[in-house]
Amino acid sequence: MNVSRPAVHPVEVPPVTEGAVHNAPRGRMKDVQGMPGTLGGLALRLLQFIFAAVSLCVMATTSDFPSVTAFRYLVASVGLQCLWSFSLAIVDAYALLVRRSLRNCTMVGLFIVGDAVTSTLTFSAACSSAGITVLIGNDLDKCGLNHCAQFESATAMAFISWNRLI
Amino acid sequence: MNVSRPAVHPVEVPPVTEGAVHNAPRGRMKDVQGMPGTLGGLALRLLQFIFAAVSLCVMATTSDFPSVTAFRYLVASVGLQCLWSFSLAIVDAYALLVRRSLRNCTMVGLFIVGDAVTSTLTFSAACSSAGITVLIGNDLDKCGLNHCAQFESATAMAFISWNRLI
Repeated sequence: MNVSRPAVHPVEVPPVTEGAVHNAPRGRMKDVQGMPGTLGGLALRLLQFIFAAVSLCVMATTSDFPSVTAFRYLVASVGLQCLWSFSLAIVDAYALLVRRSLRNCTMVGLFIVGDAVTSTLTFSAACSSAGITVLIGNDLDKCGLNHCAQFESATAMAFISWNRLI
Repeated sequence: MNVSRPAVHPVEVPPVTEGAVHNAPRGRMKDVQGMPGTLGGLALRLLQFIFAAVSLCVMATTSDFPSVTAFRYLVASVGLQCLWSFSLAIVDAYALLVRRSLRNCTMVGLFIVGDAVTSTLTFSAACSSAGITVLIGNDLDKCGLNHCAQFESATAMAFISWNRLI
């Protein structure tokens, strides 16, 4: 009986193949480091959070940033980036600890939308700050009166914390 | 002999299914207006070209734009956007006239890469110009000495000509 069974039901192979096809995306995405829920993704999120936090601190500690609208916008958007990156880093760490996959459509869609919003805000704020930093430093040569080094550092950190990886 | 053949080789079905799968994306993309090679796509490209050209003309006719780096960058990137949109409008018009599809992988990849480069340049230039326009107009209140209206119009046109549609 046991010997004949595999020969009598060779039809049972297709369901196994279908199951493999359904599992294929999950299996293919599993090896990509940097995705949500992997160690690489957690490291990237933490780096993004650190750069955004440094940019926020450097810009917020200059005395004259509230007088320029673009610098206020940079502080606001980099602060939002900090919150977002920190939240996702916590989610990634949780997923790693309980060994749970974050690769379902709802979660990935949420991450993509949130990343798109925060990265667009951070990029536009960094661009406008860069424009003003170059205006103060190169075009007007007024670095003696302003905190050019801090403005430039904060802008550079904001550019680094802007990424479009998911 | 002939009757038994189909029963012996039922395996021939899968290749037909694979062919249908390969043809599916082409059939699905055919009806989307705004894609390259459609009337909607041509209209969008022409609008993008017109807005970029107006932004370029308005900014280039102000006397003091060369003194600010961000405005020079805006002129350069909007000029590139003009050239790119005009080239693609010509390609779209040609494809419409000879009724040829532009929906193969090489063309779409080329359009995506070119659009990504020009739209990133235009967006960053528009952001930095907006930062400086707001600095001059709101923070320093020096609109009497500068061409604020022209700067604001050129920046707004650059923002409108920035799109990420393909």
